[in-house]
Amino acid sequence: MPDASGESNPLALPDVDAIRAAHARIAPHVHRTPVLTCAGIDSEVGAALYFKCENFQRVGAFKARGACNAVFSLSKDDAQHGVVTHSSGNHGAALAYAAQRRGIPAFVVMPDNAPKVKQENVRRFGATIRFCAATVSAREAACEDVQNETGAVLIHPFDDVCVIAGQGTAALELLEQASIIDIIVAPCGGGGLLSGTAIAATASKPGLRVFGAEPANAGDAAASFRSGKIEPLPPTVTIADGLRTSLAPRTFAAIRAHVAAFGVCSEDAIVRAMRMVFERLKIVVEPSAAVPLACLIERSLDVAGARVGVIVSGGNVDLDHLPWQ
Amino acid sequence: MPDASGESNPLALPDVDAIRAAHARIAPHVHRTPVLTCAGIDSEVGAALYFKCENFQRVGAFKARGACNAVFSLSKDDAQHGVVTHSSGNHGAALAYAAQRRGIPAFVVMPDNAPKVKQENVRRFGATIRFCAATVSAREAACEDVQNETGAVLIHPFDDVCVIAGQGTAALELLEQASIIDIIVAPCGGGGLLSGTAIAATASKPGLRVFGAEPANAGDAAASFRSGKIEPLPPTVTIADGLRTSLAPRTFAAIRAHVAAFGVCSEDAIVRAMRMVFERLKIVVEPSAAVPLACLIERSLDVAGARVGVIVSGGNVDLDHLPWQ
Repeated sequence: MPDASGESNPLALPDVDAIRAAHARIAPHVHRTPVLTCAGIDSEVGAALYFKCENFQRVGAFKARGACNAVFSLSKDDAQHGVVTHSSGNHGAALAYAAQRRGIPAFVVMPDNAPKVKQENVRRFGATIRFCAATVSAREAACEDVQNETGAVLIHPFDDVCVIAGQGTAALELLEQASIIDIIVAPCGGGGLLSGTAIAATASKPGLRVFGAEPANAGDAAASFRSGKIEPLPPTVTIADGLRTSLAPRTFAAIRAHVAAFGVCSEDAIVRAMRMVFERLKIVVEPSAAVPLACLIERSLDVAGARVGVIVSGGNVDLDHLPWQ
Repeated sequence: MPDASGESNPLALPDVDAIRAAHARIAPHVHRTPVLTCAGIDSEVGAALYFKCENFQRVGAFKARGACNAVFSLSKDDAQHGVVTHSSGNHGAALAYAAQRRGIPAFVVMPDNAPKVKQENVRRFGATIRFCAATVSAREAACEDVQNETGAVLIHPFDDVCVIAGQGTAALELLEQASIIDIIVAPCGGGGLLSGTAIAATASKPGLRVFGAEPANAGDAAASFRSGKIEPLPPTVTIADGLRTSLAPRTFAAIRAHVAAFGVCSEDAIVRAMRMVFERLKIVVEPSAAVPLACLIERSLDVAGARVGVIVSGGNVDLDHLPWQ
């Protein structure tokens, strides 16, 4: 099945020019988010960190970039019946937002245990939610039903050339804002953000290295990176709910080609990193967004003395249930 | 007694040139904080808001500006024995930070019930804390003791020409970053931030109006503004602990001359505004910093359809005791 770019090769990837084109395409629809620094965190980690604040992005997550690029890349004919996706939340909200900007319908398939804040984030932009059981097969079946009923185009959360290109635009901006950096760390769930980041950053600055960060409890991408084949998601649970996803062959190919190393972190370190970001950087982040810093705190990635860009992926967290409480 | 500028006239105030000079003086020591916007909050309030994020400032509050300007304005002779202040926290931390940057001692007199996070914020920068009872007279006595023992110069939290000039630099930056604005709202405790903001902004942009914002439970500045004389602080308690302070004749004079209106807000609105800022703007703020937005939510200030700068004064909040929990 072709993806939003009309691409049917399941291993096709955007190049840096496609990511630059995406950046121009989505510029009217997304924020150029600021980069923050914090001397206190730097001294804890032993490196100079540049936090790219995608928690300030439209819909509260970098996902707005990929969704906007996919939706605005559709031809008028393809777009007319709307778009559909399955998502634990942020991509769903992002697709709803992008569809509203283009004036087309959006349908979002969501597990019935999705956090309330993520449900509200989708409804706010006028999308229709279809609830399903919290399994991959139930989600895919519900998505197919919507496609068959409405003619909506599936926009996959990460296994999509246009989505990956859109996610890579955050790294392009980060390199404009902090050209000094020599490492970028991004969290890895399905691998869309990490793929786009790695393609954009390594092509833009020779010698720059991109690292992936994962919870040890959902360390399938790190394991796949080591073994050379896509490993299954472990059955354990992580607080970083945005990262409970397996790689696709497409994102795995990008990661193998362009990512230099993976780190994993404990659940405890995610909570400590999240609290450190609230307390010292004064920004609100979701657990998944704290995973790169958690890996730096636990030293599973070696960044000693380096200048490190950190993609802060999102800020949609339930403020009634902060994990340190 | 002369203040940090050597000024002994108790009604002396900085002009906009002094604020511009302060901006240049403190530039190496403070962050140029970003300005954030949020379409969701704008539609709740019915105005376009530009949030000047002084919660991202050094020590987590705008107070770093005034303290740095005061400390770096001291002559070498005056500076050599250090500086002292009484402060519920943010000014104390700011003074400790500024003194550390200049390499001189700092002494901070603090009530023994001051929040732990604020105590740590002072110790982090190597200052010596002197605890005292939580009354104005006990603070002043402890401060005098330190001056007599050490020869340290008193840097008052707001009743000081250099401190007011430093606080005004946030408004100068805001007008560079969002020159479109026609109103600025700042919270008012002792009035240092509001005075500096009003002097800087009204001189920089003709027609621009500056509004003060206060909790109704500590509405002494609003009452003073109406009555034309400094009214006492009511005995009631507000969650906005940074604003439990009376005006000085100096700040009252600036406010009467340059502030166009005052708004007050309920405690409930402060909590709702604070949560809205966490949830929608994705930043961590302390209750005092939510007071301007609380006044806009409760419509005690009329900003309908305007472009409004909001000074987000600080982000030092106890994350174990968020007020909506």
